[in-house]
Amino acid sequence: MQNVYLDHAATTPMDPEVLEVMTPYFTETFGNPSSIYSFASKSRAAIEKAREQVAVALNALPEEIFFTSSGTEADNWALKGTFEKAKGGHIITTQIEHHAVLYTGEYLEKTGGADVTYLPVDAEGRVRMEDLRAVVTDKTALVSIMFANNEIGTIQPIEEIGRFCRERGILFHTDAVQAAAQVDIDVKALSIDMMSLSAHKMYGPKGTGAFYLRRGLKLENFVHGGGQEKGKRASTENVAGIVGMGVAIEKMKTRLPQEKPRLSALRDRLIDGVLKAIPHAKLNGARGEERLPNNANFSFIGVEGETLLLDLDAKGISASTGSACTSGSLEPSHVLMALGLTHEEAHGSLRLTLGRGTSDAQIDYVLDVLPQIVAKRREMSPIWRA
Amino acid sequence: MQNVYLDHAATTPMDPEVLEVMTPYFTETFGNPSSIYSFASKSRAAIEKAREQVAVALNALPEEIFFTSSGTEADNWALKGTFEKAKGGHIITTQIEHHAVLYTGEYLEKTGGADVTYLPVDAEGRVRMEDLRAVVTDKTALVSIMFANNEIGTIQPIEEIGRFCRERGILFHTDAVQAAAQVDIDVKALSIDMMSLSAHKMYGPKGTGAFYLRRGLKLENFVHGGGQEKGKRASTENVAGIVGMGVAIEKMKTRLPQEKPRLSALRDRLIDGVLKAIPHAKLNGARGEERLPNNANFSFIGVEGETLLLDLDAKGISASTGSACTSGSLEPSHVLMALGLTHEEAHGSLRLTLGRGTSDAQIDYVLDVLPQIVAKRREMSPIWRA
Repeated sequence: MQNVYLDHAATTPMDPEVLEVMTPYFTETFGNPSSIYSFASKSRAAIEKAREQVAVALNALPEEIFFTSSGTEADNWALKGTFEKAKGGHIITTQIEHHAVLYTGEYLEKTGGADVTYLPVDAEGRVRMEDLRAVVTDKTALVSIMFANNEIGTIQPIEEIGRFCRERGILFHTDAVQAAAQVDIDVKALSIDMMSLSAHKMYGPKGTGAFYLRRGLKLENFVHGGGQEKGKRASTENVAGIVGMGVAIEKMKTRLPQEKPRLSALRDRLIDGVLKAIPHAKLNGARGEERLPNNANFSFIGVEGETLLLDLDAKGISASTGSACTSGSLEPSHVLMALGLTHEEAHGSLRLTLGRGTSDAQIDYVLDVLPQIVAKRREMSPIWRA
Repeated sequence: MQNVYLDHAATTPMDPEVLEVMTPYFTETFGNPSSIYSFASKSRAAIEKAREQVAVALNALPEEIFFTSSGTEADNWALKGTFEKAKGGHIITTQIEHHAVLYTGEYLEKTGGADVTYLPVDAEGRVRMEDLRAVVTDKTALVSIMFANNEIGTIQPIEEIGRFCRERGILFHTDAVQAAAQVDIDVKALSIDMMSLSAHKMYGPKGTGAFYLRRGLKLENFVHGGGQEKGKRASTENVAGIVGMGVAIEKMKTRLPQEKPRLSALRDRLIDGVLKAIPHAKLNGARGEERLPNNANFSFIGVEGETLLLDLDAKGISASTGSACTSGSLEPSHVLMALGLTHEEAHGSLRLTLGRGTSDAQIDYVLDVLPQIVAKRREMSPIWRA
């Protein structure tokens, strides 16, 4: 049986070369970067090199990059840190954000008295600029809109949103956890003030993320304690993880010019093949340049998403329905519901996300197996009438 | 030149066997533990095994263990989570806590209107029960007192504090980041409600910590987002790091019966040797069972601590003055000041912390080198008059 991993949006295998660069920082060059003896200065230098690597990949300055333990932590920091600093105020986000933003927004409403607006999206998952313009007030302190959606891959009009926020003097944060591994991001050109990244989505280690904070901006800290990260993020640094993130993002960036068109072509072949071979199949999200090159998301009415996953698993295919962070939940995806899908369509969804290891042969295999599985499950369904 | 690493309180080298167990979880068994296909269930199982290992080491239940990115994060969670849940209230801590607790307390005072009492300590760094009893009020929601101090190694009367808090119905949190690698901790016997741990202090990886939360207790979350860690701590789990922490704590616990007396003897030889060979040397902290087996902390009047570190570094000895998290700061250690030391004594302090690699020969080497360095620096000092 083939092993076909099509859940790169959930996590990616770490690049063996990344592991190779990280390894000495576990057992050999293990010094605490805050210590002042020469042995420990190697750990400090390794962190600063990684900071430079991340900065270069984003067209940022090294001093604008802060390492965190995850993209989720960076999202928490952006919202909570801004809210604390502004002593309240209005936050605008969207209905299709990752829970790291959504639940942080809800927490601030509940405990801090924040006023949070959750913008709707169009049928393909795009935020409409007129909706954003309509809800901005004098009290708006922050706009937090994800770069690209983790479930349906829709890329937002980030440049337009960034320009609008900059003109209005409103801080703009974007969760780029999914996008950063798939598309070029220039934080200056896009007028981004804050951005969240995660290493394990880009063939780096789990447990390391980064937060871009534009020079001159000040937030309240999120993790309080020691003076690490220029006094902005306490905790002994995860040196090996940080080193891994630096190498991972550098390698990702180098491969992007080849990988982006390669994955886009595979994605389009997968989408076209599925829509052709499976009746009553629906693509969720946009097509072409407005979709992440590695994302495909379908709804198959008459089929339970979870059943589909188990059937695919039995054929060696790893996939997901909704996001990994919410699997196990019985609620339909909040993202698909925001697109206007019915409960049934949302429950019958399948996300296939491609990556470095994805080959033409694997796509052929999925196009062979998936239509049979859907047909069989529909035959067994008491409610399905095609 | 010898390489003598005597800064195990800052961080420890990762055990090569720990790395070996972690390694498959980077590039091979890389699945997101929240995914439901069979491949990812291996990651889930690995995390649950580690949770069991941590629980067994502390006499806790697996469901009482939550993985975090660091001891600092666990400290933040304990204070902020309790404060949010209690909707305010009085917090009691000490003047000698790690900054992860101290600065979190100050943050809650500043932004949340918390009322925080910072207990003084005696000349050896012990909290006095009568001081604790005197400041408790009906509004006291939390007592947070570290298990053992990171700079001077003084172990607090945790059992007594725990019993007192349990009787009064007050939550008791202890930062055991330093203690957990050196002494046995039984959370049930000690009536501990919450506890913070860090893997990299016990020959495990940097970037992983754990939070013990007694069954039935409820806190507000600190990191909001996905449903990981039973909905209590969002973020894709750092699987390799968590696996490493599980193995590290298990191995630490196994070695403790031999390692504790071995280190205690080395420590006492070091302390006695230094006090004998260097005039006007002062030991900071307690002696015997009330001191961590691996900690020695001295003040040498007439010598700058930082100069001492550089001289030692030139001889291949890695040591620290104060804690690693605050090095580079010009402020004297808040811990040493709380003991009643003068600025001069606090500035002339040296911490030597022993570990698995520390040998008799290394202690001999330090006892040979250190007196010469102190004597030379005093000779050069314009203000030193012995």
